[in-house]
Amino acid sequence: MTEPIVPKIEDQALKENAAKPKKEKPAKAPKEVKAKAPAKKKIEGAEMKGIDVAKEDDLAEWYKQVLTKAKMIDYYDVSGCYILLPSACYIWRTIREWFTDNIETLGVEEGYFPIFISEDNLTREKEHIEGFAAEVAWVTHGGNSKLEKRVAIRPTSETAMYGFFARHIQSYQDLPLKLNQWNNVVRWEFKHPMPFLRSREFLWQEGHTAHFTKAEADKEVLQILDWYAGIYEHLLAVPMVKGTKTNNEKFAGADYTTTVEGFIPSTGRGIQGGTSHMLGQHFSKMFDIKVEDPEKGPNGEAKPAINVWQNSWGFTTRSIGVMIMIHSDNKGLVIPPRVAKTQVVIIPVGVTAKTSEEKKQELYGDVEKFAKDLRGTKAWDIKVRVETDTRDKYSPGWKFNDWELKGVPLRLEWGPKDKEAGVLTYSRRDTGAKSTIPVGDLTTEVPKLLETIQGDLFTKADAEYKEHRKEITNWDDFVPALNSKNVCLIPHCEGDDCEDEIKKMSARTSEGDSAAEDARAPSMGAKSLCIPFEQPDGIKEGETKCTNPNCKELAKRWVMFGRSY
Amino acid sequence: MTEPIVPKIEDQALKENAAKPKKEKPAKAPKEVKAKAPAKKKIEGAEMKGIDVAKEDDLAEWYKQVLTKAKMIDYYDVSGCYILLPSACYIWRTIREWFTDNIETLGVEEGYFPIFISEDNLTREKEHIEGFAAEVAWVTHGGNSKLEKRVAIRPTSETAMYGFFARHIQSYQDLPLKLNQWNNVVRWEFKHPMPFLRSREFLWQEGHTAHFTKAEADKEVLQILDWYAGIYEHLLAVPMVKGTKTNNEKFAGADYTTTVEGFIPSTGRGIQGGTSHMLGQHFSKMFDIKVEDPEKGPNGEAKPAINVWQNSWGFTTRSIGVMIMIHSDNKGLVIPPRVAKTQVVIIPVGVTAKTSEEKKQELYGDVEKFAKDLRGTKAWDIKVRVETDTRDKYSPGWKFNDWELKGVPLRLEWGPKDKEAGVLTYSRRDTGAKSTIPVGDLTTEVPKLLETIQGDLFTKADAEYKEHRKEITNWDDFVPALNSKNVCLIPHCEGDDCEDEIKKMSARTSEGDSAAEDARAPSMGAKSLCIPFEQPDGIKEGETKCTNPNCKELAKRWVMFGRSY
Repeated sequence: MTEPIVPKIEDQALKENAAKPKKEKPAKAPKEVKAKAPAKKKIEGAEMKGIDVAKEDDLAEWYKQVLTKAKMIDYYDVSGCYILLPSACYIWRTIREWFTDNIETLGVEEGYFPIFISEDNLTREKEHIEGFAAEVAWVTHGGNSKLEKRVAIRPTSETAMYGFFARHIQSYQDLPLKLNQWNNVVRWEFKHPMPFLRSREFLWQEGHTAHFTKAEADKEVLQILDWYAGIYEHLLAVPMVKGTKTNNEKFAGADYTTTVEGFIPSTGRGIQGGTSHMLGQHFSKMFDIKVEDPEKGPNGEAKPAINVWQNSWGFTTRSIGVMIMIHSDNKGLVIPPRVAKTQVVIIPVGVTAKTSEEKKQELYGDVEKFAKDLRGTKAWDIKVRVETDTRDKYSPGWKFNDWELKGVPLRLEWGPKDKEAGVLTYSRRDTGAKSTIPVGDLTTEVPKLLETIQGDLFTKADAEYKEHRKEITNWDDFVPALNSKNVCLIPHCEGDDCEDEIKKMSARTSEGDSAAEDARAPSMGAKSLCIPFEQPDGIKEGETKCTNPNCKELAKRWVMFGRSY
Repeated sequence: MTEPIVPKIEDQALKENAAKPKKEKPAKAPKEVKAKAPAKKKIEGAEMKGIDVAKEDDLAEWYKQVLTKAKMIDYYDVSGCYILLPSACYIWRTIREWFTDNIETLGVEEGYFPIFISEDNLTREKEHIEGFAAEVAWVTHGGNSKLEKRVAIRPTSETAMYGFFARHIQSYQDLPLKLNQWNNVVRWEFKHPMPFLRSREFLWQEGHTAHFTKAEADKEVLQILDWYAGIYEHLLAVPMVKGTKTNNEKFAGADYTTTVEGFIPSTGRGIQGGTSHMLGQHFSKMFDIKVEDPEKGPNGEAKPAINVWQNSWGFTTRSIGVMIMIHSDNKGLVIPPRVAKTQVVIIPVGVTAKTSEEKKQELYGDVEKFAKDLRGTKAWDIKVRVETDTRDKYSPGWKFNDWELKGVPLRLEWGPKDKEAGVLTYSRRDTGAKSTIPVGDLTTEVPKLLETIQGDLFTKADAEYKEHRKEITNWDDFVPALNSKNVCLIPHCEGDDCEDEIKKMSARTSEGDSAAEDARAPSMGAKSLCIPFEQPDGIKEGETKCTNPNCKELAKRWVMFGRSY
């Protein structure tokens, strides 16, 4: 019951010549908004239901309004918890199916481990519990009875799963063991919560695998990371930088952590997109997961048992928030076609008081027929998802705003003039560009156009990210670059303390006189986001110094630093 | 990314003439085992890994062994919680996809509401909280901090969701609202836990809908119930009886509860399979979910606002336990083909010390080719799932036992003799029957055979259930019928107290002298399972008395009573 592995975005309609919409007019240039307008201004085109604050004025308030008014989430009476509405769940389901199809090719199977973890197990790996202790939610009562032993709600499932691994893995022939689960986890953070980006409960998948050799584990970690980047790039149209976390930033209990790191242009901050960890033998030693070595010693004697090499990797609903932060605008959501629950809306227009009932019904009938035809086509190998909006009580303009708010990628209009000309008028949500499609080309052009929109969204975001990744070799340029909403690659010694120092030194405003945080002019320190796999040139071994002026070490690699979520 | 709605089982290969396996030999008749053998006997064919207690001797121990040795679940160090392994998750995923495809045709959308419920909300509907208070798990601490207000883990999500319903439903045009979520819920029961059947955490779907009229709600409740029966009948090959719960047994806070009720032949007990509730306006009054009436009064005045009519319906992983209890046997699991992660295993046979390496590799090559060919075919419109077992260190006999333990529906054997004859030998897991398939017919016969097995499993279980549903009109026959492992339909007054009395009166052994429970000779009282939709004849209005001899009331309907899980 699974879909075929979807082709990569490059393979399909994103090529230059894929879908050439006819005579596309650029959207009206949006009125320029000054970066720090003192008062919240009314957004052009917004109405009662629309968004009444600009993304560039107050990102946090804009984000909240976009999510709630477009019915992506709703707020809830337990702090840090949010209601995910159908358009959010649709995105998550698409991610789930795509990723499942991919990991199944590696032989990863689906399991489900309990939400509760005994305190004994949770605390077994020392570094791990230190990383999570502060945010574990504890169940102490069942009904009116106090439990003999309190139980933790999983913040992640290493310690829930590895007792099973120890029982199940009896011989090297039971390896590799590869399990994945889709579930909810709880991290009772006390920082300011934000829907998707920082919530106390979130949905994710967590994969846990055990291998006989380190080499196998290393290979899988990277394969998974590629698919995490793939979810962002091919589904969410969001560019990522792949790399390794520094020692300071790696997962609690891992040998090393690989990561995909994204970028929010509005704030110039980095954001972690998903992590794939090589756990080494830390957990296998604590949980006693080991197998006999099938090779014998020189005299035929058994060699010591070998602890297995483990990976864990997780991808969360945070990704949906990243996507929204990047693509959406002052009219509301902008959802990439591949993950949009509704990809196309068809709206009848030009019906006035003078239009006869017969003509109106004819137009409405056409609209339903177009919808039916389009539902028979596929984009990205999946049936096109089409709605019609024939609600009489709303004007076309009201409907346009409503569907724009919801982020539907493509709007088609059909009125008497269109009928006369034998074309449908369309409007792209991403660019606002309008043009027409001949009726006869509808079922071929719309799927192409959806893929074009998908590709254009990625291309735009990718260019923006590239433009805001600055290679800096002079410390004096570092903080100003951060203040201009960039992330910075710098030659770095990879020392833990040096990294901490850079964080402190960059926790100032451009005036250099305050370390206070301010949402509008972020002055938080820059932390290391990752050591990118793709390294710029310019570091000379034994010569290039660490960019931190107080550091005496030589630079090892370019490290990406940035203010971050 | 959804599969097409699957055809009903009747439509497909279950017709008499579907797959006629050639010259099928019946399996060896199992040796008869006396019902109450004093000692646990060794099971024929079982080996080290096999099951060492008979289903008919000690059902609870057998169940535990089947589940763990066949790697369907594993035990866990938090009581009442179990690990679901891939073959269990596969079944759940199939159920999820099938049910999702169906409810989408009703316009039900997917949402996700938080796992935590505030105490304020949880306790808002009085009957509801009374039903759940004793088993709610409470989170009181986050990290080392005591929470200001403790939060409940959802035992079900009515009270998590209906605040949103109240905010979202502003007008009758926002109706119907239909949301479904797939999640985990926690009921901290203190009764003896059993994997799948009674666990503290379980997976389920819960649908919650709001309607403008009662008639709409009534209709949906029944449609959902049909699909619940469909999951059992078409996927799990388990027969169900549809009906309404009596007042005593309905959901806490519902107007009425419809249910599908199954039957475990080994114990003669009933088991609830899934429930679909019409909540009436109980919750909509407590949560203030109401809309203006679009109709005006006689003088054009607004009518009072109308509280919406609500349904909720849930289906859980318990269903997997029911399926296992019914079909599996002393060799291990028997999994119906439609939900089996592996449907076919191909095992090379007849390789001896004398077989040349070349011949062996040729056989192994054939086996892989057969597997590949079969993977290109479909049964029940889904690709056939095939494994091969070419592990050299195990004998064919060992492998046969191993795959039988795991419940794989169909085994194919391929050895030098088969090759000479141009046939594969097969063995059905459900009946043990063996026969052959000509090599050329493999890709047409195997899919048919899988559907035949699916149908035969249902037919057998259905006949068994029918045989054990006794229509009883004389009280003296009631307890003996229960003691002979039946459920009983009796003319009943539908009075709450009378029902309680029947429970007490039937909580005796056949000797009538003890109310003590005993797992081997269950003497628990019979509770009402449901009022079946399909009513036998025989109740004469104003004439037929309630079957309880102490009850003076007239019978209203046939009510199904039974000892139960």
